[in-house]
Amino acid sequence: MYKINDNYLKLPGSYLFSTIGKKVRAYKAANPDRNVISLGIGDVALPLAPVVIDAMHGAVDEMSKAETFKGYAPDLGYEFLRQAIADNDYKARGVDIAIDEIFISDGAKSDSGNIGDIFSVDNKIAVCDPVYPVYVDTNAMSGRTGDYIEETQRWSNVIYMPCTKDTNFAPEIPNEEPDIIYLCFPNNPTGSTITKDELQKWVDYAIKIGAVIIYDAAYEAYISEENVPHTIYECEGAKSCAIELRSFSKNAGFTGTRLGFTVIPKELKSGDVSLNSLWARRHGTKFNGAPYIIQKAGAAIYTEEGKKQTAEQVAYYMNNARVIRESLTEAGYSVSGGVNAPYIWLKTPDNMTSWEFFDLLLEKANVVGTPGSGFGPSGEGYFRLTAFGSYENTLKALEKIKAL
Amino acid sequence: MYKINDNYLKLPGSYLFSTIGKKVRAYKAANPDRNVISLGIGDVALPLAPVVIDAMHGAVDEMSKAETFKGYAPDLGYEFLRQAIADNDYKARGVDIAIDEIFISDGAKSDSGNIGDIFSVDNKIAVCDPVYPVYVDTNAMSGRTGDYIEETQRWSNVIYMPCTKDTNFAPEIPNEEPDIIYLCFPNNPTGSTITKDELQKWVDYAIKIGAVIIYDAAYEAYISEENVPHTIYECEGAKSCAIELRSFSKNAGFTGTRLGFTVIPKELKSGDVSLNSLWARRHGTKFNGAPYIIQKAGAAIYTEEGKKQTAEQVAYYMNNARVIRESLTEAGYSVSGGVNAPYIWLKTPDNMTSWEFFDLLLEKANVVGTPGSGFGPSGEGYFRLTAFGSYENTLKALEKIKAL
Repeated sequence: MYKINDNYLKLPGSYLFSTIGKKVRAYKAANPDRNVISLGIGDVALPLAPVVIDAMHGAVDEMSKAETFKGYAPDLGYEFLRQAIADNDYKARGVDIAIDEIFISDGAKSDSGNIGDIFSVDNKIAVCDPVYPVYVDTNAMSGRTGDYIEETQRWSNVIYMPCTKDTNFAPEIPNEEPDIIYLCFPNNPTGSTITKDELQKWVDYAIKIGAVIIYDAAYEAYISEENVPHTIYECEGAKSCAIELRSFSKNAGFTGTRLGFTVIPKELKSGDVSLNSLWARRHGTKFNGAPYIIQKAGAAIYTEEGKKQTAEQVAYYMNNARVIRESLTEAGYSVSGGVNAPYIWLKTPDNMTSWEFFDLLLEKANVVGTPGSGFGPSGEGYFRLTAFGSYENTLKALEKIKAL
Repeated sequence: MYKINDNYLKLPGSYLFSTIGKKVRAYKAANPDRNVISLGIGDVALPLAPVVIDAMHGAVDEMSKAETFKGYAPDLGYEFLRQAIADNDYKARGVDIAIDEIFISDGAKSDSGNIGDIFSVDNKIAVCDPVYPVYVDTNAMSGRTGDYIEETQRWSNVIYMPCTKDTNFAPEIPNEEPDIIYLCFPNNPTGSTITKDELQKWVDYAIKIGAVIIYDAAYEAYISEENVPHTIYECEGAKSCAIELRSFSKNAGFTGTRLGFTVIPKELKSGDVSLNSLWARRHGTKFNGAPYIIQKAGAAIYTEEGKKQTAEQVAYYMNNARVIRESLTEAGYSVSGGVNAPYIWLKTPDNMTSWEFFDLLLEKANVVGTPGSGFGPSGEGYFRLTAFGSYENTLKALEKIKAL
């Protein structure tokens, strides 16, 4: 008699964004005349850059002829893409990453879930609170988090690192020693960042206690201030303790195009075993590569024209972030984020809960945001707005929020 | 101190096709003047069908305009594709599958590995021997197979179902009761099939003992004989015991385009828990959908023109299969498969081992095939050739094999 993975049954409710989706659909069905603007889920509004479109048309044409047709891709991804990444995302920042330390994938969400496969169930994770739910949920699914305690909204076997106003919405070194530390900078959901010196402290700590850092740098393109690290490998020693996850979703609008990559330096070892070799084995056995057409699309953003066009998209969204920050501040809200990140993190007014504010915003302003409590208990009383809408919709939404 | 998943360390050597790739690259480097023809890995030679190319160009154009741009896809996949699948792959064969029982993915290799996530580690699997290595390797990685015994080339906690000449290269009901049964028809690597009545016996058996069948139907398009089931759901009761995996790789040449789907009927339950809901949770948490452009490409093969064009591709490969079968038979080889499947399974001559024959074929005929022993110990003394080459290369390769 087969047995299911009953860790799944411990998961509370549904995935945050599915719940939001249901609420919004119900509201729209009941109010078909209302124009609902979403500044909720981190999905982008701008179409793909012309250079990406051209690259994909070209790749589609290659797939139409026997001489240029592409079947199974190399396990780690096409070299033209891995070389572009090594050169532009790393070498240009003074970081030396070899192309066989880069693994092309179908996106950072998959990678941030799948990376758990190469670690024992018997590891204790540390996560920020609030946090991107995928880190915790995927660890829960594999039995690494203990039990969910309804009362505290926390798992019994997870180390939480509160990111509150008191900590500048960044985590502090925890009292209890973790085995695996999830960090995300620029942060989703709070939009906070830390300096290179501060990140160096995490690297030093991980090395000291023998922990591994899973560093999610999906929002790297939004960094505008100096002294904020673009990759964890800018820190000394990071290659021996950190895995870096990167995405094409937010810097180039690939949310529906799907591409990402993971870096595992060969120096990252547990005893004699390199984690690079474990991930290579997983990649080769449980995945068959991102589509050729999509890998060509990804490579296009590293051309001169591609860099220019995607930088313009990032600037467009960061202008939205500025509008949101300034409008909310003007309206008396307490706001952080939005300077090195496309996320604005605001304190709900009048001691409303996050979901109360969600309902108010949806019903009275017809704006969809994300309740802070959906990211963890320390997110209660906070709310996330994203800069990924169109400029026009962002203006409209903020007018309505200001009029509340 | 973090701990790795040391189940990975139990895996013997590298993934079969990586080993073959290395041997072939070494031979080519040493013999740059030789034209090596691959009838080894199941990769296709024909370019994508015109209807698929047109659909992708159209979808790329949609991604270039804000009004038609697509961001995150629906969790289960676009409805236009799931509806086309439900209508054409199931309803047209008298099988009623709802669109929320279909989950679009980036391919059957990913699904056949990831499906293990929703089952407890504490399940005993049964696999054919020989078998597609991904089923066993992914179960080994998650700790479900016990230890690898070098001497027998088998895992200590796996039920093997030998598929030999005596069993017509199909499995027989095992003596020991498994929890999870992997079946693949038309079979990779042997090219064998079973009739609907024979498959019904497996369904009845699974229901009787409370096992779940993971049914890989990636080669369904190659079925040419009547009374061979195209989907396991043609069998009575299968919806309560079977998960079906499907691929676009072989029926439409999507090996480098990446698309597949998994069907989990809502009737498939462990106690009160529907496996459909578990897979939906995994899909929503650890995956972000196949690219919109690729889902449009997949939908195109279900149009009238698409069906015609992909049927022509399948017929082209099946003509290759006929050439391989007939030429080998003529040359005195003992051959099976190739009638309802793109794989030809041959007995190595002169009691050669599978790898000895691999080396002979590579060095003397400059043809790459796949050693049967790479698929399991009962594959020893056998060899797989695929029909996925070009017609011209297939002819050339067979001339050389006949001249050995």
